[in-house]
Amino acid sequence: MASTIEFYWDLGSTNSYFALHLIKPVAVRHGARVMPRPFNLGHVFRKHAYVLMNEPKAKIANRIVDLHRWAKRYKLPFRMPTRFPIKTSPALRGALAMRRFDKEWEFMEAIFAAYWERDDASVAELEGLQPVAQALGVDPDRFLALTESDEIRRELIAETDEALARGVFGAPTFIVGGEIFWGKDRMDFIDEELARRR
Amino acid sequence: MASTIEFYWDLGSTNSYFALHLIKPVAVRHGARVMPRPFNLGHVFRKHAYVLMNEPKAKIANRIVDLHRWAKRYKLPFRMPTRFPIKTSPALRGALAMRRFDKEWEFMEAIFAAYWERDDASVAELEGLQPVAQALGVDPDRFLALTESDEIRRELIAETDEALARGVFGAPTFIVGGEIFWGKDRMDFIDEELARRR
Repeated sequence: MASTIEFYWDLGSTNSYFALHLIKPVAVRHGARVMPRPFNLGHVFRKHAYVLMNEPKAKIANRIVDLHRWAKRYKLPFRMPTRFPIKTSPALRGALAMRRFDKEWEFMEAIFAAYWERDDASVAELEGLQPVAQALGVDPDRFLALTESDEIRRELIAETDEALARGVFGAPTFIVGGEIFWGKDRMDFIDEELARRR
Repeated sequence: MASTIEFYWDLGSTNSYFALHLIKPVAVRHGARVMPRPFNLGHVFRKHAYVLMNEPKAKIANRIVDLHRWAKRYKLPFRMPTRFPIKTSPALRGALAMRRFDKEWEFMEAIFAAYWERDDASVAELEGLQPVAQALGVDPDRFLALTESDEIRRELIAETDEALARGVFGAPTFIVGGEIFWGKDRMDFIDEELARRR
C-alpha cells in the first residue's frame, strides 16, 4: 500500500512554500501520497509564546539570505512579500473548503504561488480567494459560504489542536507513520523513511 | 589559493559536534582549510535573550529524535550527555591556548569526542582538559597557565564580540569569504560556494 506523507502547512510560512515543491519528487519516487494538513501556525506560535519578529536581527538577516540560496538552487521564483506577515485563517479555511471539491492541493499551490512568487497578498482576504476557487472550477459563492461556515471554522480549530497534540510546533512539518520531520531541509530523511517502509 | 572555511564552534553546541565531522569531506573535496573559531555561544544567546531550555517541549523532543537520525545516517557514535548544558569557557580558552602549540584542531576533536560520544563532562573543567593537552604532547602546566591567563581570557571575549559583530548568532556557523552559513544542515550550500570560488 502507498505511504502517506502528511504535510502540515500555513500560507504564512516561507518554508512551507519551499517544502510544497521539494516534497513532490520525494513522493513521486516512492509512489507516496502527500496529504495537505492546513493548520493555524500563528495559533501554535502564540501557544508557545514564539514571535518570529523577536528573533535576533542577525538571524532574521541570515534567514533571508538562506531563503534566496534555496530559491536559486531549486530554481523557484521565490520573493519575500512586501506585506508580511499576513492573517492566514481565511486561506486555511478556504483550503478546507476546497477539500470538499477535491481541489485542496491545486488551491494550496495557487495561493502559495500568488503570495510567495507574485507578491500578491490578496489571498489573505476572502475576496482574493474567491477567484482562485473559481479558476479551479468551484462556484465562488458556494466556496465563500463554506469558507465562512461554522463547520469549517470549527474544523480549522480542531485541525490545529490536533497538530499541537501530535507534537507539531512549526511549519512545514511532515508526518510519515509516527515519524515527525520538521523543516524544508529534511527531505533526505523523509526519503529514507519512505524507503524503509516499502 | 586555497579557500578558508571559518568554523565557529562551542563545545556545548550539539550541532557543532556534527558539523565538525560533516565539514571535513567538504573541505577535502575543495582543498580548503577549516579554521576553528571558538566562541562563547552562551554569551551570544544571553545577548539575544535566547534560552534553549525555554523552547516548546515538542520542539526539544523533536530535536533529540532528529539528532539521532543524523548520528545514524552519518554513523557517528553520538549520545546526549547526562550533564547538559555545561559551562564551556575553560574548554574554549583551552582551544585558544592550544592554537599556540598548533594543536587546536586535534584538541577540539578530542574534547567533542569526550563530551558528545563518551558522556565525559570532565572536559568542562580545567583538570579534565589538562590530560587532553598532555596527550597531544603539550606540557599540562604550561597549558594551564596559558588557559588561565588574562591574555587568553581577553582573546575569548574579543573572538566572541567579533563573532557577534560579523552576524554570528548560533553554532555551528561557517563563513566562506563574506558568506555566512548557519547549521549542520547547509553543507551542500558551502560545497557550492567553494566550487564557485575555485
